[in-house]
Amino acid sequence: MLDFRFADAATFEKTVEFRREFHKYPEVGWNEYRTTARIAEEMEKLGYEIHYGKEIIDEKSRVSLVQIDEYSVLIDKAEKDGAKREYLEKVDENFTGLCAIKKFGNGGPVTILRFDIDALPVNEPEKDAHKPFREGFASKYKGYMHACGHDSHIAVGLGMAMLIENMKDRINGEIRFIFQPAEEECKGGMSVANGGMAEGADYYLCGHMGMNLNKTGLFAASCYGFLSTSKFNVTFKGTPAHAANSPEKGRSAINAAAAFILGVNSIPRHSEGNTFVNVGRIEGGTVRNVVAENVVLEMETRGLNNELNTYMKDSVLRLAEGCAKMYDVEISIEDAGECGSADCSEEMRDMVFDIAKEIGLEESIKEIYFGASEDAIYMMNAVKERGGKCTYMMFGSELAAPHHNCDFDFNEETMRIMEEIYCRCIEKLMCK
Amino acid sequence: MLDFRFADAATFEKTVEFRREFHKYPEVGWNEYRTTARIAEEMEKLGYEIHYGKEIIDEKSRVSLVQIDEYSVLIDKAEKDGAKREYLEKVDENFTGLCAIKKFGNGGPVTILRFDIDALPVNEPEKDAHKPFREGFASKYKGYMHACGHDSHIAVGLGMAMLIENMKDRINGEIRFIFQPAEEECKGGMSVANGGMAEGADYYLCGHMGMNLNKTGLFAASCYGFLSTSKFNVTFKGTPAHAANSPEKGRSAINAAAAFILGVNSIPRHSEGNTFVNVGRIEGGTVRNVVAENVVLEMETRGLNNELNTYMKDSVLRLAEGCAKMYDVEISIEDAGECGSADCSEEMRDMVFDIAKEIGLEESIKEIYFGASEDAIYMMNAVKERGGKCTYMMFGSELAAPHHNCDFDFNEETMRIMEEIYCRCIEKLMCK
Amino acid sequence: MLDFRFADAATFEKTVEFRREFHKYPEVGWNEYRTTARIAEEMEKLGYEIHYGKEIIDEKSRVSLVQIDEYSVLIDKAEKDGAKREYLEKVDENFTGLCAIKKFGNGGPVTILRFDIDALPVNEPEKDAHKPFREGFASKYKGYMHACGHDSHIAVGLGMAMLIENMKDRINGEIRFIFQPAEEECKGGMSVANGGMAEGADYYLCGHMGMNLNKTGLFAASCYGFLSTSKFNVTFKGTPAHAANSPEKGRSAINAAAAFILGVNSIPRHSEGNTFVNVGRIEGGTVRNVVAENVVLEMETRGLNNELNTYMKDSVLRLAEGCAKMYDVEISIEDAGECGSADCSEEMRDMVFDIAKEIGLEESIKEIYFGASEDAIYMMNAVKERGGKCTYMMFGSELAAPHHNCDFDFNEETMRIMEEIYCRCIEKLMCK
Amino acid sequence: MLDFRFADAATFEKTVEFRREFHKYPEVGWNEYRTTARIAEEMEKLGYEIHYGKEIIDEKSRVSLVQIDEYSVLIDKAEKDGAKREYLEKVDENFTGLCAIKKFGNGGPVTILRFDIDALPVNEPEKDAHKPFREGFASKYKGYMHACGHDSHIAVGLGMAMLIENMKDRINGEIRFIFQPAEEECKGGMSVANGGMAEGADYYLCGHMGMNLNKTGLFAASCYGFLSTSKFNVTFKGTPAHAANSPEKGRSAINAAAAFILGVNSIPRHSEGNTFVNVGRIEGGTVRNVVAENVVLEMETRGLNNELNTYMKDSVLRLAEGCAKMYDVEISIEDAGECGSADCSEEMRDMVFDIAKEIGLEESIKEIYFGASEDAIYMMNAVKERGGKCTYMMFGSELAAPHHNCDFDFNEETMRIMEEIYCRCIEKLMCK
Repeated sequence: MLDFRFADAATFEKTVEFRREFHKYPEVGWNEYRTTARIAEEMEKLGYEIHYGKEIIDEKSRVSLVQIDEYSVLIDKAEKDGAKREYLEKVDENFTGLCAIKKFGNGGPVTILRFDIDALPVNEPEKDAHKPFREGFASKYKGYMHACGHDSHIAVGLGMAMLIENMKDRINGEIRFIFQPAEEECKGGMSVANGGMAEGADYYLCGHMGMNLNKTGLFAASCYGFLSTSKFNVTFKGTPAHAANSPEKGRSAINAAAAFILGVNSIPRHSEGNTFVNVGRIEGGTVRNVVAENVVLEMETRGLNNELNTYMKDSVLRLAEGCAKMYDVEISIEDAGECGSADCSEEMRDMVFDIAKEIGLEESIKEIYFGASEDAIYMMNAVKERGGKCTYMMFGSELAAPHHNCDFDFNEETMRIMEEIYCRCIEKLMCK
Repeated sequence: MLDFRFADAATFEKTVEFRREFHKYPEVGWNEYRTTARIAEEMEKLGYEIHYGKEIIDEKSRVSLVQIDEYSVLIDKAEKDGAKREYLEKVDENFTGLCAIKKFGNGGPVTILRFDIDALPVNEPEKDAHKPFREGFASKYKGYMHACGHDSHIAVGLGMAMLIENMKDRINGEIRFIFQPAEEECKGGMSVANGGMAEGADYYLCGHMGMNLNKTGLFAASCYGFLSTSKFNVTFKGTPAHAANSPEKGRSAINAAAAFILGVNSIPRHSEGNTFVNVGRIEGGTVRNVVAENVVLEMETRGLNNELNTYMKDSVLRLAEGCAKMYDVEISIEDAGECGSADCSEEMRDMVFDIAKEIGLEESIKEIYFGASEDAIYMMNAVKERGGKCTYMMFGSELAAPHHNCDFDFNEETMRIMEEIYCRCIEKLMCK
Repeated sequence: MLDFRFADAATFEKTVEFRREFHKYPEVGWNEYRTTARIAEEMEKLGYEIHYGKEIIDEKSRVSLVQIDEYSVLIDKAEKDGAKREYLEKVDENFTGLCAIKKFGNGGPVTILRFDIDALPVNEPEKDAHKPFREGFASKYKGYMHACGHDSHIAVGLGMAMLIENMKDRINGEIRFIFQPAEEECKGGMSVANGGMAEGADYYLCGHMGMNLNKTGLFAASCYGFLSTSKFNVTFKGTPAHAANSPEKGRSAINAAAAFILGVNSIPRHSEGNTFVNVGRIEGGTVRNVVAENVVLEMETRGLNNELNTYMKDSVLRLAEGCAKMYDVEISIEDAGECGSADCSEEMRDMVFDIAKEIGLEESIKEIYFGASEDAIYMMNAVKERGGKCTYMMFGSELAAPHHNCDFDFNEETMRIMEEIYCRCIEKLMCK
Repeated sequence: MLDFRFADAATFEKTVEFRREFHKYPEVGWNEYRTTARIAEEMEKLGYEIHYGKEIIDEKSRVSLVQIDEYSVLIDKAEKDGAKREYLEKVDENFTGLCAIKKFGNGGPVTILRFDIDALPVNEPEKDAHKPFREGFASKYKGYMHACGHDSHIAVGLGMAMLIENMKDRINGEIRFIFQPAEEECKGGMSVANGGMAEGADYYLCGHMGMNLNKTGLFAASCYGFLSTSKFNVTFKGTPAHAANSPEKGRSAINAAAAFILGVNSIPRHSEGNTFVNVGRIEGGTVRNVVAENVVLEMETRGLNNELNTYMKDSVLRLAEGCAKMYDVEISIEDAGECGSADCSEEMRDMVFDIAKEIGLEESIKEIYFGASEDAIYMMNAVKERGGKCTYMMFGSELAAPHHNCDFDFNEETMRIMEEIYCRCIEKLMCK
């Protein structure tokens, strides 16, 4: 029914295999050692030149680095789980992800295809109702899971590389596959955008499966409404004291935090569009009979655009300062990532929209509201600032549960549609 | 049973008559025009020299001046209600109260007897269960009532003046009756203490009926634990805005006030003794669809001593400043009275305690916890600083309801005991 | 330049005169006695049949009735200010507004033209920079002002009635002019919609000047995003107590209100669209040394549609109940008006849009976001439920300050455009 | 200067040695394995019959059991650090502490001497300014320290047992040494009081060094004002949701906790005496972009007496319930210990006061305000209910820092005074 002119059944079969392999070994942002090594191995097989680490990542732009175990332990584990040591050794500590580059024909444009590769700290359920468990490809890394569909992104990236080989004689130009680390919480996008790979790029193509389109065959040629967001921690530091002997000598960081939390809820809603603020985690104090000295709050703000997010964050910071004064405590703010907004290129959107109609997708729209944050916007803006064009697509799929939920799963057929659309983009952009 | 050596039945009868007259015409602090004029008239009859207004009141020390109606209206009303215009004309605007002075014999000490005279903004009930209504002496000034017993204080003062005439040949020295205005909320005490009447004083006697002693015949020779207190208003000034069109342009004074109110509750309790804070009145904003620009909070702090009250007030001010920062509003603080603490003189306490035993009172104690604020402390401290002695007594009485409650009433028999005790004090202090 | 085919200069001059007259005598909702009488007089002159009070207003649907002075006082004042007693006597107490009806030709549709007539409790400035003052037509009713432009609505209504006379031979059908009382805070709309005038109506035309279109010549043929809103008062009733003698016996309504206010700010923002909540006015407590017994909060919720507003109001009510439990106080809720949302008819919108293009307006759009509440929606829904069609237009104008601001003023030229558009609507809908 | 009739220098030297040994091996409540075994060994040497575990501890009355490591690990460590396995094997898991009993002479009263033995989770500083470090007896258990002086209590207990041997021929009756586990946070006292050792007891003697008396030679024969306290955890359980995609579906446990924390601060101060409440620890939520599902608060209330503490706890529970309603979350309360108040026996107080005067202590008082909680009160009440008498003494000492502070240290001379007082008590109570 659909016109799969490029995405053949055999490659799709291999794509599903890849997806299930990566699903088994989920690695969170900045810890994608096995993932990177395996992708490198596959891409190198197809003749791509692999760029790792500081070649493609700006060290200072990395955000919220966390190493979940000792580096050597992680590397050993990755080797045990099928990654080759020769590739692992090239992946520097917390410099995960890679860029695979290949040139085709004579001259021609530079096209970036971007796929994000990190998993989530979610515990995958061991129950038959959950297909990955039932069919034997559930996570082997307890506490971690590909619950956002990035396993499909990786698989489609690798499938694409195979399909491109089928059309390589027609292509003129350079293709850069960016397998981006640490998308969740927008931790990696800026470091890649500042890492050099945007230079000379003419086109930047990326997207996400699932999201607001809950059926395979639905498609949006572009997204708008990437929420601008700021991530940060607020620490209150008070003065401990015995809670009954001398409470008046104490300055409770917990009391200050409570007033602050209610305070951030009091930031006026904005008439120009949605704004959000959330304190997602709190921890502080020591024991019940001592006035709490320290509290840390992990929080975020968001806005429909950069101005609205700035309005929220500025308000939060003012509230924190005032609260510190009220409760006679000290505050410190630790940034943990920012992510702005970006717009797709109209021209590219229209091209993709036409492609979708040609393939015969059930329902296509030119643009859809994204309503979340996405660090692809860094590269989108970087490419556009350099004169390039971009779009961010959304590929519908039946979802077993919402993204980030432990019951998340999707219809793998979507991956074949993704491949077909990406191939047709390459054709339109790079083939004679 | 009790040994009423001075307080005869006839004077007591007249005292009751006075009490009921003053109960009918209650006037709040700084508005005691009729009250002052009537007292002056009675005291002058007995040969006292009356000092009014700026002679006895320090203008700048008056606190929370309020004129409940135009001066001339109040004066006319007072005349209509039985005060003589010749006395009313001597009572300057908001310079109510008086000091009546008389000298006896040759030389001798100066003794001050102090009685407070103001009423409360309480609505007296019109029901038979309420004795003042049932017996026809309920308030004729709607919305005002002698609900704290100061009508008994006035009556005892006038009764005392009559009784003193009976013992005048034995007395040597000067007696100053201070009928103090504006005791409620500690508004008048400081202005009287700074007004000159403390000069040369050797003894200062005062007290209160009822309070913690709920039976006629109970008595405390002195009080401790006069709570130090600060009265003030906090105003928040924000920025109005349409609540739906542009709430983000608003700075809600109501939100700020809410955070502030919860903030003042968060001031740590003090290990060294009771502390209190209360926001007793709030008013702000205009209409429901506009972000509120202004809010005024009428509040007070208290502490067992001056240090504890200072701790509370300083905390409140810090909280107000922090809150202003949090909610991006402005604050202003308006002082509305302060009242510290004071100690009775041990020697005087013991003398009074002995008197109570001699009279045969059912139960007497040397001292009792006061647990409230009282602006008599200004004069107590002023007299003591000048080498004088003082005590503040408590005279038990059956109360129909707590002080300040609209059902308040007391056992008038208590007034006779008050007179007897005061007379015996005069005897011990001033008679040969 | 603009094609004023109907709205002639002479009528415009008279319209300006009307506008300035009504600007001088602003009357707030349910108190539009002079306004109603003057409109009745003018409409009757033109042969309209006037329906007043219970004929057109459903008594029980009136919301937030307030009589700002005694009825007879207001009537006398209105007469003194130019209204005729014969009309005033027909305007029942708090049944202001009127419906003027006239039939034209043979048969034909029923068209309602709706103009709202109430003013605001805003104090008009007396300064030369303010044109109504400078040109001598500032408010003569201190504390009240036509600060929302309803004076222009009245004037355009009266101007329209004059212009219709010029085209009366071409018209077939019935025209109903509804001069609606009490639009502000959505107090009057429901009572009119339930009052009978929607029966048999085919078309309902209304609109507002100014708003989001800040230039004369801008125009929107319809509005969407009438915010659904609920108005209500929340009263907390606690237990009074002396703030230092027995604070533990008190239950502070002020503390409860503070927690409630911060609580309503904590209602999660909604991902589906704008929601708002505002506590616009607070008053409670008596004096500073008594734990506050009562507090009243005047507040409102809004949402982009009925569901979002219901989400907000339900959350507020739950918070109030929880707060009452927390602080051991009682609550009561008093409704003060509701206003839902409504959609314009596409067909009518397109007709009006075409008219605007024919006139040659500088810039016209089919629809614009309203972003506020408007009780015209009651009649819009009532007409549509009966098979009729409606639209709500927005007529741009230069504004001296935002609506409801005391410096508000507008470009009177807008009124001529309003008249021209309304006339052309009548032509299209009712003329052969 | 002081008359050490019983406490000889040699025993004091041994007491110091004991104190330093126990200081080196601090064990927190319910984990005093080495401590118990060593005490047992020493007491058995002196002919005492040792009762362990369920013989003396009511299993169900144990509160806040925590095993800081596996039982076998702790036992092995204790053996390595000098405890004998034969004693360790008798100490059941979390049944630490012991009662050592010996009978003297014929008949006579039963006297309990109680010493608490647990340490604190405090990190002892390694700096020369800190005497235990400087002199080589600092804690060998990192993170734990005898920072409350219970090491001195153990040492005095053992010293007393030695001194009693010197006077054994004069004694008639039974002496029970209770070495009580888990005094901190009042975790052990109730289980011992319900464990059987109160049966038949005539006298109960106990006390604390340091506290409000900061000089060796100061002494109080009894204490009053043991604060009644409740320890408990409050858990809020809300509903998680993505903080930007669907915040309206979330119910933030963190928001609820914040309102609750400010709520508990709003509990009115009590006019009858000090009350306290503290939230000492908070932890909840998962990541910053998810509405927090769970929060746990570890908290306590206190009051000058049981009624005041009950007032506080009841208020807290009501606030928690109301808060759950407000924020649409669930709550659960987990008790973590209670400790009431108790009064010393006047007769015993006077006896001890006389003893202090006989010894020639610098300054002795009959009673002192304790101002903290102490689980000795359980046994005090148990003994008194059975007709016995008790007192709780306070032994002054120079302190290097307040109790529970990591710099805490004391003047060891105090231990000799403790021994002398306890011996003289034994003499007065049990010797002919």
